[in-house]
Amino acid sequence: MGELDLIQEIRRGSGRPGGAVKLGIGDDCAILRLPAGHEVLVTTDFSLEGRHFRRDLHPAESIGHRCLARGLSDLAAMGAKPMGAFLSLALPREMLSTARGRRWVEGFFRGLRELADRSGAPLAGGDTAESPAGLVLADITLVGSAPTGKALRRSGAKAGDLLYCTGRLGGAAAELETMFARGRMARALPEKDHPQLFPEPRLAVGTGLLRRGLATACLDLSDGLSTDLAHLCDESGVGAEVEEALLPLHPLAAQLGAERALHAALNGGEDYELLFSAPPDVRMPKALAGVPITRIGKLVRKSQGITLRRTDGRSEPLTSGGWEHFAAAKRI
Amino acid sequence: MGELDLIQEIRRGSGRPGGAVKLGIGDDCAILRLPAGHEVLVTTDFSLEGRHFRRDLHPAESIGHRCLARGLSDLAAMGAKPMGAFLSLALPREMLSTARGRRWVEGFFRGLRELADRSGAPLAGGDTAESPAGLVLADITLVGSAPTGKALRRSGAKAGDLLYCTGRLGGAAAELETMFARGRMARALPEKDHPQLFPEPRLAVGTGLLRRGLATACLDLSDGLSTDLAHLCDESGVGAEVEEALLPLHPLAAQLGAERALHAALNGGEDYELLFSAPPDVRMPKALAGVPITRIGKLVRKSQGITLRRTDGRSEPLTSGGWEHFAAAKRI
Repeated sequence: MGELDLIQEIRRGSGRPGGAVKLGIGDDCAILRLPAGHEVLVTTDFSLEGRHFRRDLHPAESIGHRCLARGLSDLAAMGAKPMGAFLSLALPREMLSTARGRRWVEGFFRGLRELADRSGAPLAGGDTAESPAGLVLADITLVGSAPTGKALRRSGAKAGDLLYCTGRLGGAAAELETMFARGRMARALPEKDHPQLFPEPRLAVGTGLLRRGLATACLDLSDGLSTDLAHLCDESGVGAEVEEALLPLHPLAAQLGAERALHAALNGGEDYELLFSAPPDVRMPKALAGVPITRIGKLVRKSQGITLRRTDGRSEPLTSGGWEHFAAAKRI
Repeated sequence: MGELDLIQEIRRGSGRPGGAVKLGIGDDCAILRLPAGHEVLVTTDFSLEGRHFRRDLHPAESIGHRCLARGLSDLAAMGAKPMGAFLSLALPREMLSTARGRRWVEGFFRGLRELADRSGAPLAGGDTAESPAGLVLADITLVGSAPTGKALRRSGAKAGDLLYCTGRLGGAAAELETMFARGRMARALPEKDHPQLFPEPRLAVGTGLLRRGLATACLDLSDGLSTDLAHLCDESGVGAEVEEALLPLHPLAAQLGAERALHAALNGGEDYELLFSAPPDVRMPKALAGVPITRIGKLVRKSQGITLRRTDGRSEPLTSGGWEHFAAAKRI
């Protein structure tokens, strides 16, 4: 497999132009069609070996899936629909010259493509290079659309709003813990119920919240509830009270015991669930697009800070202790 | 300088929302406004230490400038205007903790910002991480706009069209050769006439060609004339004849002597000039937006292949021998 083969592999992922992609790979830029009355949303996310994944622990399919999921989750958080994905991918030389390397690359694209097809996010372009450091280096850009002026933001929450999250929390960190403990790569597994290996971006929940006008503020839980809630509070100028008893723990987290489960739910990160607020008089459905919605607390005045009410009734400050699995990495 | 300082540095580059950027850094995605009657163009380009630049040879300002110039040049090639730039940047740990590192980061952003301001390409978002390999790793995404259906493409050239380029060729490779020979970093230099350190993307030429309907096909000379011409011929289904005597050599290339100058012009890459075709009855201006336009040959039937007519009248095949300064890197 030479570089041309790699590019062919990427082209396979891109499919034929259609939908929002008017012109895909092969020119200096891709061309995307924006639906009338919509505006353009853009997000970029690194997936760097040794920072965001480990090649000895994450199967290739998982790494491809997670790379795309990071960007899709940012679109979901704003209620946007994907138009196209752009992948910059640097690979170690041996991946282009050995059968084992070729299998890895095929697995990576299988994982990425499966999620891309299912999410309506065709690969529309990118860049390739030989990695300068023997490490797999990926950067994904997602371009999406939302009705003009309607995108969900971090900044619209008000004191008195209720606080909700989707799905279950702490599963990604709990599964990672079992991967570390086992110390070797998980076999390629079916994609259900693997919150670390195959997180599911909540695109249909995001567009549902936007269409039905349910949320006053929203973001995705990539860094962990404690860190991401602080972002929502900062941007909205509010405080928050989270109730431990209400947190929907992922079964994998619950197995860790109460304190470690709580830590995973608050600080684990990478769950890629949505965290959002809504006025108290909104009748929130129990589920959206098949994903459970759980009230986990409320927003309060900024001066009251961000607190966690424990199950014994005590309140304690909830400080940011988010995602640092491999080393510091920060979204801007 | 911690990571928050780095993010502040990036925010400084982004300026206030305005123009096409409705919402910049601080939410899960940026929001861009597309002008009515336009479509969205997207390109991404790696700038990886050891592949696309060397920290011991390129000053920090040059690395920031070149990182952005790569993406802007792709927009220029299609006649598009920038809406916003997105930077994913991974830095070695010491860059965030030492005064020398801080100076490097400031220099990088000074170079990037100067070109961004001048080009109307505000930094609207991105991602940051600690580099896993002690190397500076950057990926730039440019999002631009062009009138619907009007973007210049690689695929519209016809046999009989004349072939043109902007500016002078071979300068970037020639300057790099002097940098290698000197073996140490160039001092930060004024930006004029440094085709390797501060290449100038031809945005105004691209939009001029589009507006005046002059070009049948266009792309940018990033990999070198011999390689990029082959792309244009492939996509358009034509051959080409380039005349050595017509090639506008950059003065730095001309100093190398005839054969090395020719090699730099044909295969050097990184000149970021535009290569385009136009019907023979078009009256091509001698310059666009102050940049000289030179006829360098013509397009012929595909069966005639791609040839170079030497100054002595002989014709020889012109084979792709483009950009591989540091190692293989390929645009998709």
